[in-house]
Amino acid sequence: MGERELLARIIPLLGPSKGALVGPGDDAAVLVPGSGPVVISMDTLVEDHDFRLVRPNGFTTTGYDVGWKSAAQNLSDINAMGGTATSLVVSLTLPPATSVAWVEDCARGLAAAISELGADNCSVVGGDLGGGAQLVITAAVTGVLRGAPVLRSGAEPGHTIAIAGTLGRAAAGLALLEDGRPIADFGPAGKELAAAQLRPVPPLASGPAAAAAGASAMLDISDGLVRDAARIATASGVQLDFRPAALLPFAEELRSTADLLGEDPMHWVLGGGEDHGLLATFPADRSLPPGFTAVGSVVPGKPLVTLASRATALRGWDHFAH
Amino acid sequence: MGERELLARIIPLLGPSKGALVGPGDDAAVLVPGSGPVVISMDTLVEDHDFRLVRPNGFTTTGYDVGWKSAAQNLSDINAMGGTATSLVVSLTLPPATSVAWVEDCARGLAAAISELGADNCSVVGGDLGGGAQLVITAAVTGVLRGAPVLRSGAEPGHTIAIAGTLGRAAAGLALLEDGRPIADFGPAGKELAAAQLRPVPPLASGPAAAAAGASAMLDISDGLVRDAARIATASGVQLDFRPAALLPFAEELRSTADLLGEDPMHWVLGGGEDHGLLATFPADRSLPPGFTAVGSVVPGKPLVTLASRATALRGWDHFAH
Repeated sequence: MGERELLARIIPLLGPSKGALVGPGDDAAVLVPGSGPVVISMDTLVEDHDFRLVRPNGFTTTGYDVGWKSAAQNLSDINAMGGTATSLVVSLTLPPATSVAWVEDCARGLAAAISELGADNCSVVGGDLGGGAQLVITAAVTGVLRGAPVLRSGAEPGHTIAIAGTLGRAAAGLALLEDGRPIADFGPAGKELAAAQLRPVPPLASGPAAAAAGASAMLDISDGLVRDAARIATASGVQLDFRPAALLPFAEELRSTADLLGEDPMHWVLGGGEDHGLLATFPADRSLPPGFTAVGSVVPGKPLVTLASRATALRGWDHFAH
Repeated sequence: MGERELLARIIPLLGPSKGALVGPGDDAAVLVPGSGPVVISMDTLVEDHDFRLVRPNGFTTTGYDVGWKSAAQNLSDINAMGGTATSLVVSLTLPPATSVAWVEDCARGLAAAISELGADNCSVVGGDLGGGAQLVITAAVTGVLRGAPVLRSGAEPGHTIAIAGTLGRAAAGLALLEDGRPIADFGPAGKELAAAQLRPVPPLASGPAAAAAGASAMLDISDGLVRDAARIATASGVQLDFRPAALLPFAEELRSTADLLGEDPMHWVLGGGEDHGLLATFPADRSLPPGFTAVGSVVPGKPLVTLASRATALRGWDHFAH
């Protein structure tokens, strides 16, 4: 099947081109003019680096999963600026053995993530298809801001640290998927945690809500809480001190699964990425918007992440170290 | 070297973040608000599919070449809509053996293409870095329009077909690079044609000029003149008839090189892509903007591309067939 035939099969699966004056099919797409600055980001998923098509236990990652995750991680970057996504462009690099059904399923996953995550002003407006040795999916996402973007650099001593979304669930899911045993052996929790890894659910309403509530710094937790917190600490020149007691509930939810694997669930909470929750800081006089939980405080000091004032050696995901 | 260290090395090589309120380093970049709709496109280059690091004759494609070509082909898509580029985001997938110097060279090539091609309002504002089995570079480009976009669907019988930029030079360069003999054996022309393949020079001033002059349809010739003309024919529901005599000068320039390879230079002109020249149609009462040459006429009939009213079987590049 040629490029044109494949495009003809997948474009209808992407749903209507909301937000685009010109959708897929020309040299470029044309977006509906919006008010305020345009935000743009890009994320790539590579087979055997960011996902596996077949796991040691035989579990298969579907095209739908990969499409969903690509959309979700990109939409999350706009969320992390306090913005609302307006378009995705998607490039698929496909090995010769890739079936048309897999690509169609990937298109369905992209569309489903956009729709089910509530990115109501967004659609896939264009992209690129080509061959390669390895499956690679790259999406770029645009969005709009209502006000100023929430950067990583605005945290100040005295501000409250807060989290929206889940922590450690995607990491727990990854541990289950990489374990040799079938996911079914871990019961309903196992299935849910695998889904958290394969089809993350970034809290897309929370980014704009945080911006409106006066968040001073924000990012999405994609590489691990400690590692991502260190990015705010570095960009803002402050210390981020977490209250372990406030993080414990996230770990408790994962304890029974962790026990089955002989793991410490707090490692998933502190070191696991890919849930694409939000880590934000708020001036102490602001009320946290719905969905956010206070988990610590910004304190003066060298750029550092601490737990109850103690340094932590825990790090998250390095895209080259794995 | 980790992701952060590598970013710290390459970001300074990308030059100033023109057009961005927030450049690389946060979850997303923020573009300076412009007037008019935003245009967006995306193109990917894959090692061993779209470029080779080492050719049969020992010729090496540099990181600079790959960066240049990625920027050029993306900027060309905005040009083809009649727009002006405002930002690039770039994702690099790097095999473990890739040297830091190669990546730095790639960043220099991206910046050089933007600057030397005259994309003065554009810069690399963000992207993604990760590991993979094969080198893959994907860029997404945004642009702005002064007026309405020039689509593929507006050609009407009676309109003049015109070309801006070069034709067949990148294809001739590819033939030289894939020939076993060293490029030096082909003299100065050989070196220039290889450069046309490795570092294409899309005529970025011509797209907005064509839009201002009332072009009715336009695209950039990336997959071959006949193949790309067929896209306008199909989108517009018309026949595009080329005058062979008008195309001959493009072939004559390539004849001495073609003779050395035993090729017909007209095949490169009709079938070769990657020069990223513009193919446009203009109402007959409009004067062609500088840089455009008339090469045929739009005629009524089934969507078809003809040469002096005869059908041509020549096709260009299929991204899956090679």
